[in-house]
Amino acid sequence: MASTSTFKQLVRFQDGEGRIHYGEVESVDNLVGQTATIYDGEQPWSLVATTKKATIASVLAPLASVPLIYGVGLNYKKHIAEASFPTPEFPVIFTKPNDALAGPYEDVPVDPEVVELDYEGELSVVIGKDVKNFKKGDDPLPYILGYTVGNDVSSRYWQANPRSGGQHGMGKSFDKFAPLGPAIVSPSAPAIAGKLKDGIPVLELQTRVNGEVRQQTSTGDLLFLVSDILQFLSRGRTVRRGTVIMTGTPSGVAAFLDPPNWLKNGDVVEVEIEALGTIKNKMVIG
Amino acid sequence: MASTSTFKQLVRFQDGEGRIHYGEVESVDNLVGQTATIYDGEQPWSLVATTKKATIASVLAPLASVPLIYGVGLNYKKHIAEASFPTPEFPVIFTKPNDALAGPYEDVPVDPEVVELDYEGELSVVIGKDVKNFKKGDDPLPYILGYTVGNDVSSRYWQANPRSGGQHGMGKSFDKFAPLGPAIVSPSAPAIAGKLKDGIPVLELQTRVNGEVRQQTSTGDLLFLVSDILQFLSRGRTVRRGTVIMTGTPSGVAAFLDPPNWLKNGDVVEVEIEALGTIKNKMVIG
Repeated sequence: MASTSTFKQLVRFQDGEGRIHYGEVESVDNLVGQTATIYDGEQPWSLVATTKKATIASVLAPLASVPLIYGVGLNYKKHIAEASFPTPEFPVIFTKPNDALAGPYEDVPVDPEVVELDYEGELSVVIGKDVKNFKKGDDPLPYILGYTVGNDVSSRYWQANPRSGGQHGMGKSFDKFAPLGPAIVSPSAPAIAGKLKDGIPVLELQTRVNGEVRQQTSTGDLLFLVSDILQFLSRGRTVRRGTVIMTGTPSGVAAFLDPPNWLKNGDVVEVEIEALGTIKNKMVIG
Repeated sequence: MASTSTFKQLVRFQDGEGRIHYGEVESVDNLVGQTATIYDGEQPWSLVATTKKATIASVLAPLASVPLIYGVGLNYKKHIAEASFPTPEFPVIFTKPNDALAGPYEDVPVDPEVVELDYEGELSVVIGKDVKNFKKGDDPLPYILGYTVGNDVSSRYWQANPRSGGQHGMGKSFDKFAPLGPAIVSPSAPAIAGKLKDGIPVLELQTRVNGEVRQQTSTGDLLFLVSDILQFLSRGRTVRRGTVIMTGTPSGVAAFLDPPNWLKNGDVVEVEIEALGTIKNKMVIG
């Protein structure tokens, strides 16, 4: 069964008069200045096509708000092997709250006490339909609105003991620590429709800091795919539409460089995923 | 500075015609059948007093929805000492989502795969005003809408490794795993106004399973009080009004009985806190 998305490449943006729209774009690159075909509707799962056009003045986070962001830890097979971690039996899940949302090109303000700042480039799945008790063998596609690029910005200081009690979430839940965008690309979009493996599009991901490549992988190396994650997340639990699942990050984060190479004030982090576009966010500490 | 609450003992309820109201009550016990004085307004931080009355037919969760519930782990000094845990330097924080909300007398439906079911009676703080970057020495009271009784229902199976990756949240985030109520009692209510210690009212808490006492403590034994918790939670992070902070549970949970004495289908868990009332929820497994 196909996704119920009405769009292919959906961007949420402001036009020159400051009005906010959802629109269809020809390309997910060089969005500012592009003309988009507008949808009526404020929620990406209930859009109505129009023939109206508008020019993109600034690109916003692809969702105005989220019920919750779920992050998955340790989900790339090569990264698990390199780090000599045992292969986990279940996805490791933490949450990021609504206020963590940030736009694809927005600055990330960082409190000076939030130190040991790191990036995590991640393929992110946007849920389009409430799901509860998803079972092995169910088709994940009807629940997937589309895919977007995410940076699971993390303070390793607050993620580590004794500050965290071993809980990953708090060190990753600061305001604007989840830049997402620049688009939501439907599973039915031509650029990815042939590349789906259990709800995951197999695409190249690259994270760059000030232009230097730090992470490079194919999402085909992910251990837990959408069926596994939805089965785990939705057991006895309603996963609401609008929820974003950040599927985990590959090797190359600052914490595991020797010595660790934390993000500094003014550093620009880009996460690019083939066919989904690039997010580019400057860290502003202070 | 005093709390800005307009109410003393606030109950959210349905009247006999099914209309939902917030109302002031004379007593937080024996609520069904009581006559409440109605407030106009749908949010508990923006109520307007009226002289209208209505009879309580059923009591609802004290908030229609929450941005997020934060739970605090290991926060009772005696419990920490008994268990020979080191005293934590920082509160251990996990989240429960909006769908975990349940009413004070509502059944808790439990998926049969969600096993090793446990209770945690907890004093819960309702935030009434957005807070970010709360500092040591700031007054917590302006941010506190009031206090309510909570049960941090937990599946120890899903909270434990290898299912959780050490993350507490998922095993506590199933639908309706956070019964709250029956009222929100303002810091200025006569029954607790003289008992506040750094935002925490010092009150007796008791948890009973099918009438048998399992937990009994004074909230005066809490390690991290509201200032500590708000300072930790709001560093670089906006804690939105409507957020509920469950402050942690004392000793006596089923997991630490020898042998563990898990909740069974039909078990009724009551959590009672002096001056705040009692919540009473039946576990319905299957």
